Amino acid sequence: MTDDDDIKNDLNGNGSYDLVTPQDYEYEHPFNFLHGGSIPRLNIRYETYGTLNADKSNAILICHALTGNHHVAGRNKPDDKAPGWWDHFIGPGKAIDTNKYFVICNNCLGGCSGTTGPASINPETGDPYGIDFPVFTFEDMVEAQKLLIDHLGISCLHAVVGGSMGGMQALVWAVRHPDRVKNVVTMACPAKQNTQAMAFNCVARAAIFEDPGWKEGYYAEQEGYGPMVGLSVARMMAHITYLSDFSLEKKTHRPADPLPGDTPTARFKRAITPPIWSYLRHQGEKFLGRFDANCYLYISAATDFFNIAGDKSLVEAFAPVQARVLSVGISTDWLYPAWQNREITIALNRAGKEAYYAEIEAANGHDSFLLRSDHLNDTVSRFLAGGSPL
Amino acid sequence: MTDDDDIKNDLNGNGSYDLVTPQDYEYEHPFNFLHGGSIPRLNIRYETYGTLNADKSNAILICHALTGNHHVAGRNKPDDKAPGWWDHFIGPGKAIDTNKYFVICNNCLGGCSGTTGPASINPETGDPYGIDFPVFTFEDMVEAQKLLIDHLGISCLHAVVGGSMGGMQALVWAVRHPDRVKNVVTMACPAKQNTQAMAFNCVARAAIFEDPGWKEGYYAEQEGYGPMVGLSVARMMAHITYLSDFSLEKKTHRPADPLPGDTPTARFKRAITPPIWSYLRHQGEKFLGRFDANCYLYISAATDFFNIAGDKSLVEAFAPVQARVLSVGISTDWLYPAWQNREITIALNRAGKEAYYAEIEAANGHDSFLLRSDHLNDTVSRFLAGGSPL
Repeated sequence: MTDDDDIKNDLNGNGSYDLVTPQDYEYEHPFNFLHGGSIPRLNIRYETYGTLNADKSNAILICHALTGNHHVAGRNKPDDKAPGWWDHFIGPGKAIDTNKYFVICNNCLGGCSGTTGPASINPETGDPYGIDFPVFTFEDMVEAQKLLIDHLGISCLHAVVGGSMGGMQALVWAVRHPDRVKNVVTMACPAKQNTQAMAFNCVARAAIFEDPGWKEGYYAEQEGYGPMVGLSVARMMAHITYLSDFSLEKKTHRPADPLPGDTPTARFKRAITPPIWSYLRHQGEKFLGRFDANCYLYISAATDFFNIAGDKSLVEAFAPVQARVLSVGISTDWLYPAWQNREITIALNRAGKEAYYAEIEAANGHDSFLLRSDHLNDTVSRFLAGGSPL
Repeated sequence: MTDDDDIKNDLNGNGSYDLVTPQDYEYEHPFNFLHGGSIPRLNIRYETYGTLNADKSNAILICHALTGNHHVAGRNKPDDKAPGWWDHFIGPGKAIDTNKYFVICNNCLGGCSGTTGPASINPETGDPYGIDFPVFTFEDMVEAQKLLIDHLGISCLHAVVGGSMGGMQALVWAVRHPDRVKNVVTMACPAKQNTQAMAFNCVARAAIFEDPGWKEGYYAEQEGYGPMVGLSVARMMAHITYLSDFSLEKKTHRPADPLPGDTPTARFKRAITPPIWSYLRHQGEKFLGRFDANCYLYISAATDFFNIAGDKSLVEAFAPVQARVLSVGISTDWLYPAWQNREITIALNRAGKEAYYAEIEAANGHDSFLLRSDHLNDTVSRFLAGGSPL
C-alpha cells in the first residue's frame, strides 16, 4: 500500500478527527509457527474504534496490507499530519460505521509497528531477532489475531475485512476458523500469490539483501544504518505496482527539457532523474523512516507463500467456509487483476456458499481500494448489514 | 528485451545458421547532439544480411531495443550458443526475406556493443567517456543511423523496422526523414513514453547510481567492478516488465515448501529466494557480462525523452510522413499497452496517411514481438511486399 499524505489528506480532510490510543496485548506464552520455530512471548499492538456491544457480536477485524499497520482510522494526537490509512472508510456514519460496529485493527505478526517481529528484541539474547525470527505465513498471522480476539472475549467476529495482503488474511480466517467469523470482505487480492507479484517481491528482496548495509541480516546489532539504498529501491519499485500509469501521470509532468545554461553534468543528471523520479524517491525515503528491512523480507515472503487452496482445488478448499463473502476487484489493478477476485466468488458459489463479487471502476490501480469510492462504501456497508451488496 | 537463450534456441533451432561478420563504419568527423555537446568521431558497428540490389532500393534497417545490439540474425561463429536475437524473423525465406531484402542492423548510438557510447574511450582523454558522454535522444540515434545509410549509398530505405525502443526509432525516421524511408513497421511501442514505464526506468537507474560501485559514474577508471548489484537489480526488475504473469509462471513453480530438515537459516533463505528468484537472478547475472551501467542510464533516459509529437498533436506531428506505416500491438503487453499502437495508426489515418494496425494475440507480454508468430510473420511480409497486411 502507498503512503501518500497528499492523497490521505485530500480524501480524509472532511473525515473523523477522533483520537485513538494504541493498545498492547502481551501474550506471555510461547508462540509456535506453522513452518517451525517459536518465540517465547508475543506482543500484539492494536487499536479499537467504537464500542463492543453486550453480547460481543458487533466486532469487525481489519487486516492491513504489506506495509500498513494498526493505525487504521482517527488520529493518535490532535496535530497528527494525517489520520489513519483507512479513515475515510471507518468511523461514525462511514462505510464501516463505528456507531454500530466495534472495529479492531492490529499490527500483523512480524510487523515493525509494535507487534513482535524481526526488529523486536529477542528476550533470550537481548538483541533484535533479525533473521533468527521464525519464517511465518498468513496462517501464523491469523493465529496471532485469534489470540487477540480470544483475549477480547469475542467468540465470533461480525466480519473480517482487508485489501491486498489484508484480503488474503481475511480468506484464511474464512477457511481456518469458519465458526469465528460471520462475514468476510476481501479486496484486490488473489486466491494464491501470482508469479508476477512474487517476481516483483523477489527483486525488492534482492535489492535489500544484496545491499552491503544488510550485513547478512544483522545490521541492527552493528554500526551503520542498514540496507537503506536497497530498502528505498524496493519501495520505489513496489510503489509503481500499487498505482496505474494514469495515477503516476497525475503526479508529475514530462521530463524537463534541458535548460539552455545546463552544464553537461547538469544535463545528464536532469536526464536520469525526471520529475517522476523525485516523486518515487520521496516515497522511498519516507518509507525508510517507518519500516524495517528484515520485516520487509519476512512479510513479503509470507505473501509469496499464500495459496488458500494448498493442494486442493479452490472449490474443495472453500468447503469449510461458513461466512458470507464479498470479494471486490479493482478494474485497473494489474498487480492482482480483478479476475482473481472474481475467481474467489465463483469458487465459493460452486461450493454452495453465499458469496458476492463487486468490481470497482477506479483509475488508480491496485491501491484504489484505499481511496474514497461511493460504490465501494455502499457495497461494503450493505453487505455488512446482511443485505445483498449488489 | 529479454535475453533468454532457452527461448531463442527453442524458437530458432530450425532457423538460419548463416555466418555473419560485424562491420564498422568510422565516421571521422565531429558528431553533434540534439541536446548539446559533441564527440570528435563516431564508430558505428553493424551487420548486414542478403544483397543490396543494383539500384539500392531493397534495404531494410532494423532498430534494436534497449539492451539489444546489431547481431540480429545468423551466427558470428559456427559454435555460437544461440543465433541473433531475431533470427527466426530475418533470413532466407523468413518474414523479412534476405533472398529479397538487404537487411542492416547497427548497434545504436550510445550502445556498448561496438558503437561509440559512454563505455568507449574518449580520444581526448584516453579514458572511457563515462558520464561525460553527451545526453542523447532517439533523434540523435537516427542521425547516426542516417550517416551509416549515407555511407552505404542508400538514398531511400525500403523499410525501417523495430519493436519497443526500436519501434520508437522507426517512428522518428518516418517523421524526420520522410523522403528516406518507404515503409515503417513499429511494434509494441507508444507515440510517447508513458509515465509508468518512465517510473520503472527511474527505479532501475536509482538502483544503479545509488550503488556505491557506480562511483559517481567513473567506475571504469577506478578499481573495482562497477555497480554490479544495482545493474543486476535493474535488469531483474526490467525483465519482469517484458513478460507476463503467464510467461513467468511457465518458468518456474510455486515457492518450495520448507523441508523437514531445514535449519531456521535455511528456512529463511528458502522463503526469501523462491525458484522465480533464481530465474531472475540468472537473467541479472547474464546481463552484467554484456552491458555497461552508464550505457543503461543513458539509453533508458533517451527512452524517457521520447515523444514523437513534441508540442504538437499527434495528427499534426505526422503531417510530414510519406512512408506507409504498420503499427503492431501485443495483446498482453502491459509495459506499452496495445492501445498505444492503435493510437499511432488512428492518428496517421487522421493525417491522411496509409497506415495499418495489427494486434498479435500472444500470452507472453511485451517481448512477444520477439517470439515466433505466424500472424506477425504473415502481416509483416505482406506489408513489406506492398500489399495490405490485414
